Amino acid sequence: MSSSINSGERGPFACEVLSQCVHSAARRTRLRTPHGTAETPAFMPVGTAATVKGADPAALRATGSEFVLCNTYHLALRPGAELIHELGGLHKFMGWDGPILTDSGGFQVFSLAQLSKVDDDGVSFRSHIDGSAMRLTPESATQIQLQLGADVIMAFDECLPHDADAGSVRASLQRRTMPWAERCIALHPRDGRALFGIGQGGMHADLRREHMSALRELPFDGFAVGGLSVGESSADFRRILEATTPLMPTDKPRYLMGVGSAAEILDAVALGIDMFDCVLPTRNARNGQALTFNGPLRMRNAAHTSDARVLEDACDCATCARGFSRAYIRHLLMANEILGAMLMTTHNLRFMQRLMQRIRESIAHGDFADFAAATKSAIGSGLDNKDAPDKG
Amino acid sequence: MSSSINSGERGPFACEVLSQCVHSAARRTRLRTPHGTAETPAFMPVGTAATVKGADPAALRATGSEFVLCNTYHLALRPGAELIHELGGLHKFMGWDGPILTDSGGFQVFSLAQLSKVDDDGVSFRSHIDGSAMRLTPESATQIQLQLGADVIMAFDECLPHDADAGSVRASLQRRTMPWAERCIALHPRDGRALFGIGQGGMHADLRREHMSALRELPFDGFAVGGLSVGESSADFRRILEATTPLMPTDKPRYLMGVGSAAEILDAVALGIDMFDCVLPTRNARNGQALTFNGPLRMRNAAHTSDARVLEDACDCATCARGFSRAYIRHLLMANEILGAMLMTTHNLRFMQRLMQRIRESIAHGDFADFAAATKSAIGSGLDNKDAPDKG
Repeated sequence: MSSSINSGERGPFACEVLSQCVHSAARRTRLRTPHGTAETPAFMPVGTAATVKGADPAALRATGSEFVLCNTYHLALRPGAELIHELGGLHKFMGWDGPILTDSGGFQVFSLAQLSKVDDDGVSFRSHIDGSAMRLTPESATQIQLQLGADVIMAFDECLPHDADAGSVRASLQRRTMPWAERCIALHPRDGRALFGIGQGGMHADLRREHMSALRELPFDGFAVGGLSVGESSADFRRILEATTPLMPTDKPRYLMGVGSAAEILDAVALGIDMFDCVLPTRNARNGQALTFNGPLRMRNAAHTSDARVLEDACDCATCARGFSRAYIRHLLMANEILGAMLMTTHNLRFMQRLMQRIRESIAHGDFADFAAATKSAIGSGLDNKDAPDKG
Repeated sequence: MSSSINSGERGPFACEVLSQCVHSAARRTRLRTPHGTAETPAFMPVGTAATVKGADPAALRATGSEFVLCNTYHLALRPGAELIHELGGLHKFMGWDGPILTDSGGFQVFSLAQLSKVDDDGVSFRSHIDGSAMRLTPESATQIQLQLGADVIMAFDECLPHDADAGSVRASLQRRTMPWAERCIALHPRDGRALFGIGQGGMHADLRREHMSALRELPFDGFAVGGLSVGESSADFRRILEATTPLMPTDKPRYLMGVGSAAEILDAVALGIDMFDCVLPTRNARNGQALTFNGPLRMRNAAHTSDARVLEDACDCATCARGFSRAYIRHLLMANEILGAMLMTTHNLRFMQRLMQRIRESIAHGDFADFAAATKSAIGSGLDNKDAPDKG
């Protein structure tokens, strides 16, 4: 179906640690999945509705992306998991023959759905698309992901606001997220597809540690950190990540959900995180922010009006390699042309994959810390900071 | 710059008639331009703002498109012809190394601009983008197209409403369109780039004949029929085209502006038209109408929800060849995903180019009339007819 060439061996999910940084917890692994392998640290582009916005599968593959994330919540609502199952599964449906990870839908239910009402068995809510009544439970969320045919399935968890107090967080972990994790395990067929558990605990380091210590005793194939990058301060982000990562098993992949900027990724890799996903590189592409190793460029700025240069000199993405100028890209963005979104998306995803490739190489060569420091300094405040001066 | 491979010889504009249908005025020609050759009858996709919406240059080339049309009015307003000239011209700007035809801006001034006020020297108007005051004259319209670097430049003409009376049309031809044609010729440097004249005359067959008879005496490199497909009945369309085409020179290309549907193209080819352009195949693609040789499919229809078939079995476009299902494409369109527009655009443009290829082959094989009748019957009422039952 897909025009892309699948990389690596297919088989039951497995994680092989390839090398370990001697100065930090950073490491390289190779993940094997039923749809081929992926090298970590890995950035997974987000294909919310079974498409990474602005990129067809061939363009996506050409950015060096190996793993794609799709959203269970969105796909369950439209077009429906049963339909995708009938049509041969998500890989065939969207023309992507590489590994796919699906989230559990929990985060979206709590952030996007209307009138969501959680009980100890699951969550009832109304679709943000058409208001229809829906319900997700650990069992149905797992079943939907199995129907979609994901290579990595995420356990269904409860996501509280980042400012939830310790009592609420503790109750959520004990009555929902932990029992739900066990129910997901009970339903999963262990057929070579992976099931990852999600550590929660809000901004309470002791609860984070307690929860991950319990979670790691369950037979998950990998472990994620959830509930970060949801509005907390960067100090809280770092504090919670530092508290959690030492308790995550070293022989299984570690996934930081919904992160992030180059700076956040570099910090998290140093703490041993292997996998990342984030909508910002693609969303910001459509909004006109180009990622470069000299810092982001805001391409709608008048400064780019007559600039004949490509987005980034050293970049080998299909946008830069074909010579499309900043002036042309700015013109396309100002005119709201589809090609503007396409060219920017290609560039930003390739930037993320170049970043991950350099991270992997620097770990292999033993100079990850130097690379991370130099890159953070060159890139500056990262793609999240909308007030940063345009360094281009 | 472009990733595409340019086809054919580059050189001063020339038109070689390759074969002539014995049953009709249909013919095949090869046009040589400074940016390579194009076979006719040809359909030129419209790249209004220096991009064919939903297709990058490589995807556009892969549809078999050779000639692209860009809009002088839009580009003069944004980003400006001088800027494009400074950046090396339109071909380099948009990454298209094949032939480009630019319209004169006249049609858009009369249809899109605000407060347009025409006098015998030119037209003053306000930009539909930002309301700024602008003026186009035969000289400035030609100068802008020269700055853009078009391979085929269109003379600046006055476009009247299709129901204009004979007196108004005659006055427009005598005081504006004809003198303006001569002024365009006077300014054009004759440097290998073509200049086409545009025949007008409204719905008045005698004025159409009179004007084309006078226009053909001017040293244009090709001749166009303007002011059709602007709201007139199909009977008027055919009547005016039949009145005009016999007076168009046979040794130069003949271009029917803004047309059209497969049925209109087949009719016009029989009358000797060589070149076409129309936004409908791309615009309708984005709106969910897929063109096929069995008639159009309205892809938002619920009938396609679980249809695993490709848009058209026999189609070799990048969308069908990669196996994207009707169900997936419908899903993308319902979710307003960019990839939906991309996949549909690729298919519809390839449909148009398959149509033109079959037209050229049938002319070469001497069975154009049979091909045209069979195709019109199979396709039905064509892409314009929004009330046509969905034949898929």
